[in-house]
Amino acid sequence: MLKNDLEILILMGSDSDWEIMQAACRLLDEFNITYEARVSSAHRTPERTLELVREAEKNGAKAIIAGAGAAAHLAGVVAGHSLLPVIAVPLNATSLQGLDALLATVQMPAGIPVACMAIGKAGAANAALFALQILATANSAIARQLADYRRAMGDGVETKDQRLQEKLNTAT
Amino acid sequence: MLKNDLEILILMGSDSDWEIMQAACRLLDEFNITYEARVSSAHRTPERTLELVREAEKNGAKAIIAGAGAAAHLAGVVAGHSLLPVIAVPLNATSLQGLDALLATVQMPAGIPVACMAIGKAGAANAALFALQILATANSAIARQLADYRRAMGDGVETKDQRLQEKLNTAT
Amino acid sequence: MLKNDLEILILMGSDSDWEIMQAACRLLDEFNITYEARVSSAHRTPERTLELVREAEKNGAKAIIAGAGAAAHLAGVVAGHSLLPVIAVPLNATSLQGLDALLATVQMPAGIPVACMAIGKAGAANAALFALQILATANSAIARQLADYRRAMGDGVETKDQRLQEKLNTAT
Amino acid sequence: MLKNDLEILILMGSDSDWEIMQAACRLLDEFNITYEARVSSAHRTPERTLELVREAEKNGAKAIIAGAGAAAHLAGVVAGHSLLPVIAVPLNATSLQGLDALLATVQMPAGIPVACMAIGKAGAANAALFALQILATANSAIARQLADYRRAMGDGVETKDQRLQEKLNTAT
Amino acid sequence: MLKNDLEILILMGSDSDWEIMQAACRLLDEFNITYEARVSSAHRTPERTLELVREAEKNGAKAIIAGAGAAAHLAGVVAGHSLLPVIAVPLNATSLQGLDALLATVQMPAGIPVACMAIGKAGAANAALFALQILATANSAIARQLADYRRAMGDGVETKDQRLQEKLNTAT
Amino acid sequence: MLKNDLEILILMGSDSDWEIMQAACRLLDEFNITYEARVSSAHRTPERTLELVREAEKNGAKAIIAGAGAAAHLAGVVAGHSLLPVIAVPLNATSLQGLDALLATVQMPAGIPVACMAIGKAGAANAALFALQILATANSAIARQLADYRRAMGDGVETKDQRLQEKLNTAT
Amino acid sequence: MLKNDLEILILMGSDSDWEIMQAACRLLDEFNITYEARVSSAHRTPERTLELVREAEKNGAKAIIAGAGAAAHLAGVVAGHSLLPVIAVPLNATSLQGLDALLATVQMPAGIPVACMAIGKAGAANAALFALQILATANSAIARQLADYRRAMGDGVETKDQRLQEKLNTAT
Amino acid sequence: MLKNDLEILILMGSDSDWEIMQAACRLLDEFNITYEARVSSAHRTPERTLELVREAEKNGAKAIIAGAGAAAHLAGVVAGHSLLPVIAVPLNATSLQGLDALLATVQMPAGIPVACMAIGKAGAANAALFALQILATANSAIARQLADYRRAMGDGVETKDQRLQEKLNTAT
Repeated sequence: MLKNDLEILILMGSDSDWEIMQAACRLLDEFNITYEARVSSAHRTPERTLELVREAEKNGAKAIIAGAGAAAHLAGVVAGHSLLPVIAVPLNATSLQGLDALLATVQMPAGIPVACMAIGKAGAANAALFALQILATANSAIARQLADYRRAMGDGVETKDQRLQEKLNTAT
Repeated sequence: MLKNDLEILILMGSDSDWEIMQAACRLLDEFNITYEARVSSAHRTPERTLELVREAEKNGAKAIIAGAGAAAHLAGVVAGHSLLPVIAVPLNATSLQGLDALLATVQMPAGIPVACMAIGKAGAANAALFALQILATANSAIARQLADYRRAMGDGVETKDQRLQEKLNTAT
Repeated sequence: MLKNDLEILILMGSDSDWEIMQAACRLLDEFNITYEARVSSAHRTPERTLELVREAEKNGAKAIIAGAGAAAHLAGVVAGHSLLPVIAVPLNATSLQGLDALLATVQMPAGIPVACMAIGKAGAANAALFALQILATANSAIARQLADYRRAMGDGVETKDQRLQEKLNTAT
Repeated sequence: MLKNDLEILILMGSDSDWEIMQAACRLLDEFNITYEARVSSAHRTPERTLELVREAEKNGAKAIIAGAGAAAHLAGVVAGHSLLPVIAVPLNATSLQGLDALLATVQMPAGIPVACMAIGKAGAANAALFALQILATANSAIARQLADYRRAMGDGVETKDQRLQEKLNTAT
Repeated sequence: MLKNDLEILILMGSDSDWEIMQAACRLLDEFNITYEARVSSAHRTPERTLELVREAEKNGAKAIIAGAGAAAHLAGVVAGHSLLPVIAVPLNATSLQGLDALLATVQMPAGIPVACMAIGKAGAANAALFALQILATANSAIARQLADYRRAMGDGVETKDQRLQEKLNTAT
Repeated sequence: MLKNDLEILILMGSDSDWEIMQAACRLLDEFNITYEARVSSAHRTPERTLELVREAEKNGAKAIIAGAGAAAHLAGVVAGHSLLPVIAVPLNATSLQGLDALLATVQMPAGIPVACMAIGKAGAANAALFALQILATANSAIARQLADYRRAMGDGVETKDQRLQEKLNTAT
Repeated sequence: MLKNDLEILILMGSDSDWEIMQAACRLLDEFNITYEARVSSAHRTPERTLELVREAEKNGAKAIIAGAGAAAHLAGVVAGHSLLPVIAVPLNATSLQGLDALLATVQMPAGIPVACMAIGKAGAANAALFALQILATANSAIARQLADYRRAMGDGVETKDQRLQEKLNTAT
Repeated sequence: MLKNDLEILILMGSDSDWEIMQAACRLLDEFNITYEARVSSAHRTPERTLELVREAEKNGAKAIIAGAGAAAHLAGVVAGHSLLPVIAVPLNATSLQGLDALLATVQMPAGIPVACMAIGKAGAANAALFALQILATANSAIARQLADYRRAMGDGVETKDQRLQEKLNTAT
């Protein structure tokens, strides 16, 4: 069902999570990493979720990214069935603004680690970058790409600063 | 593995939860209800947890009580695999004082209900009483027992008030 | 005042709660369950609230669903006057985003259980499903309906995943 | 059941609240105000609670003080059945440290006011002082007593400051 | 500066609070109570705030209502300078949604009581009703008005329920 | 009342705050700064608090440190009456663990700044250091002392690390 | 890179913070204070951030204002590398509404003080005013300007009150 | 300074964190992983912290674990200077019970990922396990060890359940 040469599996609990989780996909695309992004719920399709995890392991995935909101159990359930690094993105899907998803994700009991990122889009982007950092521990080409990416990000901050200086100087 | 005539299955994620969860057991004992209390974790022994749930369903259980702390996924995971009413007790097992377990338990997404009780011992007692109320919907003997129990509880409050009045009168 | 063959009574503290609480009604309609949905407040019409509860008990109701926001006392007050299972939906009706209603609902003291669902629409839907699970403990037809419902829900997740795959493949 | 010349009724949901609520009694004793302190629960003895309220109204009470913890409904339930000013003391009775009782008490919906004090002992003392301030609006003797009390309190702060100065000077 | 026959003084920290605080004024208008509503800040115009309080006391005010947001000190500052009952309305004026104003208002130390209402418009309305309940302790005409008001409020709930029943019956 | 050559005034709302606030005094002693530490409450002794502030200004104080718990208004009230920099230490004095004091202190409205430090002892120490940094902007001797202090602090961390290394090496 | 006669350096972690942080700039403009406002991130451009801080110190800056959202480390990182007073503005940049930035900013460990202002625009304005109060400790001209500013602010409150009185009188 | 064949660097902000962070060390010992545990602060010894990070990178470390409390900036600062995976343990070091450290750690902005574990000892243990899972992506021996470890953990849960069953059977 999943690609054979899979490096990263991205799971999300609902298709409404796609708007946020695509931030992870875009980054993996930018780094030319093979991944699959699937909708599968810890509660509504528990068996299917585990099948996807088992197949991802078999097909060579090195990490799993799981995004979920509310009582976000997806990452924890996956982590309970796999020894791959599980990176979680708590999503803001209820009136509690993601605090529920954050605590349901990050407070894992000893023995079953989940790597929790920030709530929402920043967390989705960082989940991909963290997965890339894991891949880079054994792949120096990705390590070099990450170094380039970070340098460009720093340059971007400087450019934004220059634009602010121009605006301020014009205002005077 | 489980008793044949099981009415209620009580699960707890860790044996350290027993101190709190026995409040539920004591109430079921008082009402002469057949139950089993088992330690099984959603994360550390996920398959075994599901086996216990399946066997409980087969042996006639009418409700499942699940107590867990931290990122408390036990009730949600059980509810995702069963159509029996799942009653959850969030436990105060981390420095966040049970707020993590509460939100990880109560904020279930639409489709997979979990009946959340209060954090800790009050919640454990109420989980048993709520399970008894479910049994009572089809069993008038239990309904009568519950009415007696509640009457006695009200009398207990009056007795405590009388003791306070005596103390206040003596003080004068 | 209430229907004779009532199975579920739904109470809400204000007519502004209807937008959320109708999610419970739609599900009960889908399962052909007889219910009544009434606006009655724990604080503004306390006597009338209790009359509705007493009549529901007399007319055969098996469970009561109560939705309320702010200092949400409705479910607790009903539970203090009835031995029927009370299922509560805390509503997001103030600037505290439902956290007030959640804590005012879920933290019931030992002796008077209330089954708390998630805040808002997900909670309203789950209140109905949980009421159905209670009815199903003594009614195998409803149990079968619930199994069908859950299967369809799982299929829905798969369909949504397929649509995401199509979108992703087209994008490539 | 209650004294005839009652000025203030103090209700508490459990006898374990007495340790905190006696701070209110001591202040009323100090001001020679007639009051009664009773244990009665909004959930476990709802009818008796209302009887006490009705009798207090008949016997001339001018205000009701209600202390309760957890999902603290006592003050709100009393306020829903009485037009007397209801002063509430949220108590720290669960692992959530009184935040549950605070929100369950203070967030009353429009139409049924409850005057919420601080959580715990400071709130219990202030509930008595606030009741005295209400009595003082129509009783200049109590108003004078309150002015004396506050002056003495200010003097107490100065005395404490002097002791600190002595300690600091000795240390040098 | 203030009316001579003042019964209630309403203070608010900023003119942006007027939109919420007018809910209190409307109720006092409805009960024909003489009041003044003034903008004065505990921090920006501290002396003027105290002048208003002193004049209100001299002109016969029986209670002071204070609405403020953020680090809401207005009610506490007023209460530290007056023995009149101070009723506070915490306002939602920052990104913390009124939680800051609530805690800054309700957690008064022992000795200086402030009667805290709910955050926002419900609290503003209840502040007026609570002030009326204080006036009613010595004025039976206001007590009767309050009883009428509450009866009408209960009737309003019943009317809303009837409209919901009509809508539900039409839908069928 | 206060020393003539006062550099820093330290206020605390209650003598029970001394245990925490002395951390500030010890640091000022270490730097040979003239200060006075006084108990004075924003609510219980408001006039005296302002007298102390006015006298401190007259006697040459360059900054005021204010420590208070609960609905901590002390710093805000002082800041509303003075143009000196006011440095606040929110204290953990209630069951809400200092969150109340923090929000009541930090969320000051635009126009009246208060410099909020961390809750409790760390905040008390940092209040003194921050006051020293203010003095150092116009006093290079204090600036040099601060540089020495910070160097020593860094050395202290290294020493602690060495001890940990010795412990770890011994354990092996 | 920075102006030679710099008095205040304003740093913000992202150009999206400008909308809020310009409130600080406007106030410094109003007081004719020389400052620079720069975009530089504690995480994305850490070296550049430190260069700006070192240059500001060399060019005579007396205080640094740092605005950042999310896990707001900017002020703390700057304070770890400088002995100038660091004034922080936590920004509301995530779904947690600035609570994350507030706690990440205010809870600095003993030894490295950061002066935390309110979340958002009020905090940005107050950061500038607090910086001016620091400058005023050694500059009586600025002290006079601050006194004028505060007087005008108080007058503004009175004007707003007059407008409310006119509106209320017209309404009658 | 650091071992040449370093696989994991463990940093903690204070030697008081050692009691918690040793849970990580014990696990790495159990798996025969070469690591160093060092006390170094993001704020008090920022340069030294970066030296340790640079040396760890040079000596071959594959991941960095950082434990810190309060306004926990250590992991974020390290992540801003390194492309190695940074695993963070927020510690309960203030009256806010670790909520401050959690939010200061997990809410990292897009671009600089930090993998946040649970607050306290569970998080310290999981940080080590997660680091091992990263190493295992390129080392099948560690992968096998992890599988053994998890199996043993599951067996441990079963043993605890058996003990509970024996206790319950004996009680009967």
